[in-house]
Amino acid sequence: MSLLYTLDLVGTAAFAASGAWAGIRRKMDLFGVMVLGLVTAIGGGTLRDLLLGDNPPFCFNNELYLYLALGVSLFTFVMYRHLGNLRQPLLYFDAIGLGTFVVIGTEKAMHFNLGFLGTVIMGVITATAGGIMRDVLANQIPLILRKEIYASACLAGGALLVALLHLGTTRSVALLIAAVTVISVRLLAIHYNWALPRAQD
Amino acid sequence: MSLLYTLDLVGTAAFAASGAWAGIRRKMDLFGVMVLGLVTAIGGGTLRDLLLGDNPPFCFNNELYLYLALGVSLFTFVMYRHLGNLRQPLLYFDAIGLGTFVVIGTEKAMHFNLGFLGTVIMGVITATAGGIMRDVLANQIPLILRKEIYASACLAGGALLVALLHLGTTRSVALLIAAVTVISVRLLAIHYNWALPRAQD
Amino acid sequence: MSLLYTLDLVGTAAFAASGAWAGIRRKMDLFGVMVLGLVTAIGGGTLRDLLLGDNPPFCFNNELYLYLALGVSLFTFVMYRHLGNLRQPLLYFDAIGLGTFVVIGTEKAMHFNLGFLGTVIMGVITATAGGIMRDVLANQIPLILRKEIYASACLAGGALLVALLHLGTTRSVALLIAAVTVISVRLLAIHYNWALPRAQD
Repeated sequence: MSLLYTLDLVGTAAFAASGAWAGIRRKMDLFGVMVLGLVTAIGGGTLRDLLLGDNPPFCFNNELYLYLALGVSLFTFVMYRHLGNLRQPLLYFDAIGLGTFVVIGTEKAMHFNLGFLGTVIMGVITATAGGIMRDVLANQIPLILRKEIYASACLAGGALLVALLHLGTTRSVALLIAAVTVISVRLLAIHYNWALPRAQD
Repeated sequence: MSLLYTLDLVGTAAFAASGAWAGIRRKMDLFGVMVLGLVTAIGGGTLRDLLLGDNPPFCFNNELYLYLALGVSLFTFVMYRHLGNLRQPLLYFDAIGLGTFVVIGTEKAMHFNLGFLGTVIMGVITATAGGIMRDVLANQIPLILRKEIYASACLAGGALLVALLHLGTTRSVALLIAAVTVISVRLLAIHYNWALPRAQD
Repeated sequence: MSLLYTLDLVGTAAFAASGAWAGIRRKMDLFGVMVLGLVTAIGGGTLRDLLLGDNPPFCFNNELYLYLALGVSLFTFVMYRHLGNLRQPLLYFDAIGLGTFVVIGTEKAMHFNLGFLGTVIMGVITATAGGIMRDVLANQIPLILRKEIYASACLAGGALLVALLHLGTTRSVALLIAAVTVISVRLLAIHYNWALPRAQD
């Protein structure tokens, strides 16, 4: 499915840029910035494949992911002074990546005979673990654990995809509906500044 | 062995509660609290299974672990204002989890033909890696690396289990003796505030 | 190849000492110091083997690595007051470990049919991931991501090794040239205080 693959690459690039940006802000050198970009972009899918026992992970079977993530990180490093006004658009590409990673990860997990919850968790890991690794390496509490609707959108989309496929929906339609759901919830969350409750509230 | 499985679930619930509590204290939102509860409860066994090459990890084969950890985390999130006086009892359940996880992890590793040290390390990883991941995600130096007799109890119990089984002790007796040893050392350490030496002392 | 194995053990000991030292500085107890020494010494090779799907990881097949890393960590813990004047020599042994780990990791990855970039990344992971785990556990931004030429030396050496082997160079000669390259760049970087650029500069 060529559209899905295209969106996957868009998401990989967006995630790499967000990782590189985090590295620059934490005053890392060129190597550190490239590591953060790479880990953010491919960390989620890599952890999913490790857990599924599908070795080597996806990005070592198709190195385009590695070249793309490193290339975008290098570009961000070199050009970052001129990229300030791209931060808002980047959030939209990031949302596209989020939705795409969720449906790819969830669908892949369905081929490994996990239960419902395990399958949905694999989709969430695919979309969120890279960002968590980025924040751990930058020595910060992962943003996603603190104040975003980010992961909840993934959970909803993954569950929806499993449900649709079990109900017999055509694969491409189910993937599309689930991805659009994640992306829409995410964009609405950005727009309206939605957040999950905290225990203190 | 039904008793061991029951204790395993008790330990899973206690570990999930400790993870959820750490998330609440670090002002995480609902998603973050559930991730911390889940990772604390199943992180050790999952890392052990990754290292042993036993994919997918245990909790994806029996999703009860996932539902239990997430359920306890949600409960802790909702009820945490009323749980203050449960902190001391929780330490006891946590000790039960510690002993159970050590013997389960050590015994499982024995089926994978590791050496003595590798087998004992797998038991220690099963019992301690989840708590280490919890503290890394909460952006703190893992408590267990700093000032508790926690891990030493695991080491002793795991070594004892391997020795007893090699000496021909019946499986259930060996598991019981080793688990009770870990739990006892841990409870005595809490009671008497034992700690390992530091290089500075 | 006995020389490579000897250098591998020298590097393992040096990495363990650096990990133990980091644990002592962060006021960890004996268990924490031994965990940091162990993780620093075997973390890189272990992550590489997890990614390659070669279970259990190398150090569980040859427990000498485990005993050596734990022994050196214990020695460092006990003797650390008297080791102050060994810090400079330790940097040299650390450089030997770096070069050796890169060539071992890169060559191993070549047996798993990865592409060029994936192969080189596996060598870099072998040499650097242990130090990154050490710093994450010590709750610090990994040093290697911030201000050292450390990782670039690994990249260069790994790429050189793959190129030499593809050009038909004898294995032992290629390994030697690549390892010496990494070690030399690293020692020159220490001597001249080389650093990669940062985006702020």
